[in-house]
Amino acid sequence: MRIDCLQYANWSEKIFRQMREGKVDAVQVTISYHEMFRETVQNFEQWNRWFEQFPDLIMKGEWASDIDRARETGRTAIFFGFQNPSPMEDDIGLVEILHTLGARFMQLTYNNQSLLATGCYEAEDPGITRMGRQVIKEMNRVGLVIDMSHSADRSTIEAADLSERPIAITHANPHAWSPALRNKKDDVIRAVTENGGMLGFSIYPHHLKDKSDCTLESFCGMIGDTGEKYGFEQLGIGTDLCQDQPDSVVEWMRVGRWSKEIDYGEGSAAAPGFPPMPDWFRDNRDFGNIEAGLKAVGMNDDEVQGIMGGNWYRFFDENFGPRS
Amino acid sequence: MRIDCLQYANWSEKIFRQMREGKVDAVQVTISYHEMFRETVQNFEQWNRWFEQFPDLIMKGEWASDIDRARETGRTAIFFGFQNPSPMEDDIGLVEILHTLGARFMQLTYNNQSLLATGCYEAEDPGITRMGRQVIKEMNRVGLVIDMSHSADRSTIEAADLSERPIAITHANPHAWSPALRNKKDDVIRAVTENGGMLGFSIYPHHLKDKSDCTLESFCGMIGDTGEKYGFEQLGIGTDLCQDQPDSVVEWMRVGRWSKEIDYGEGSAAAPGFPPMPDWFRDNRDFGNIEAGLKAVGMNDDEVQGIMGGNWYRFFDENFGPRS
Repeated sequence: MRIDCLQYANWSEKIFRQMREGKVDAVQVTISYHEMFRETVQNFEQWNRWFEQFPDLIMKGEWASDIDRARETGRTAIFFGFQNPSPMEDDIGLVEILHTLGARFMQLTYNNQSLLATGCYEAEDPGITRMGRQVIKEMNRVGLVIDMSHSADRSTIEAADLSERPIAITHANPHAWSPALRNKKDDVIRAVTENGGMLGFSIYPHHLKDKSDCTLESFCGMIGDTGEKYGFEQLGIGTDLCQDQPDSVVEWMRVGRWSKEIDYGEGSAAAPGFPPMPDWFRDNRDFGNIEAGLKAVGMNDDEVQGIMGGNWYRFFDENFGPRS
Repeated sequence: MRIDCLQYANWSEKIFRQMREGKVDAVQVTISYHEMFRETVQNFEQWNRWFEQFPDLIMKGEWASDIDRARETGRTAIFFGFQNPSPMEDDIGLVEILHTLGARFMQLTYNNQSLLATGCYEAEDPGITRMGRQVIKEMNRVGLVIDMSHSADRSTIEAADLSERPIAITHANPHAWSPALRNKKDDVIRAVTENGGMLGFSIYPHHLKDKSDCTLESFCGMIGDTGEKYGFEQLGIGTDLCQDQPDSVVEWMRVGRWSKEIDYGEGSAAAPGFPPMPDWFRDNRDFGNIEAGLKAVGMNDDEVQGIMGGNWYRFFDENFGPRS
């Protein structure tokens, strides 16, 4: 089973066909960065159109069982998530509405301070806010998973502790391997995984050791080390693949509507766009390379199958609905 | 001249007539607590209707010169403000749009953490956020005044320092006189007033010494002491009059849409509604009592006239448009 828990591509039939070529059974796609509720609904509408146009390639994913159905029918199940809580605006009642529409992951912050928690680019992090505590309870109730990939350390640890259900870091790597601001320190990964949460490994070059030149061996070796430390069952893939996106989209991700000045995030004025992907992972067709790489560094079959998708499948199965 | 820099009444012809009876030349009215952009536009629409219905009593206030026009024609000029940045949502471009529509004050927070700063009910206050810094610049540019009445201490001090134009605390009292969470400590009042900013004294009973039993002498004595300490020119009135509002409105102010649980704010489960106003200030007809009370504690005419409205007039005149 192959599950990628984070992609944000410039979607097209070409990419859907590449998913099938790479035998990808499920993908969590980001449908909102800074979009608010009404704009997010439009993004759901766009996906409904794609499901209608490409019924042989993709289908909407709501539950883990949809992945079984996708595998049986040779399709990829598309699950939805937000990288910012903007779609719920300031309205806790929208948590359940968005879940009903199909949202399954929501980041509490995207780089900046939100109404709920602190993003990794703020100077200080006072943890989960008063509203954040209420929203975590509500997300737990309906089965909308808390994702802290772009959050600051203390907020992430507090979210893992306050949440009564496991949370996720869908796309980041250990800071000790590659000290990017977005990568996660030991105590953060520990807090998330010891509460049953998941870490999805990112292939966004800014999160890789040696960036675009990172080797498959280094990447897979890092995964093996992380498994030894935190348990192989808590690990999966979240490539952060942003295929075919123009630079204008990078700018939207970074600046949204919060600043009139440009903010380069992990890039710079000299290199404002997306860096090139490493040669062993250009797009969805290359998941086989990762699987081979994991085997090559000595992982056993169960470990490899878990990381490639089995662990996310179990996590989806346990966390996408009300508590049983 | 009489200016009240904060009221949030359940508006009616009765109250507009009371304004005239109390010789109130201008009032800043709150038109949004948790309302977002579209809802705020509806509140502007409602006021346009009232201006059309009661042209002999009230008129829209946009500039200090409108107060002169109101005085010449025996009317009250109504200026608009927000107690939360909700109307600008996550969109810095809305700052100028809202100013064009008539907004002149915007609180960066209302009790809770916002996208811009920290509210006074949060456990910790990391100061102005990344977006907050951008928005302060934009508010300075267009002439939308920063109001920190419901903000936490550090955020208020940082806003006073970061802002290149004077800011305001439109409705609060010194904490040393009445140690309510919403009242302001010395260093906060100092930071605001030494940068040319204003403090408006509140008559909301939770902000008064002895609450509803506070005497006029105590209130006016406190104003005199504050004048000696920070300068009489930086002081005005912001009664926080919430006349004729049902308890459901108190609940909206406190809970908005951020929590499914009730939050009593400065009230309690036993006393969830508005406390009774002190007998010397029931409504707009009683501004004469305050004026007499200020004289009675020994202030000179200039000081009294400044506090009753002259200081707000000067502040409005200097801060409601682009910098000259």
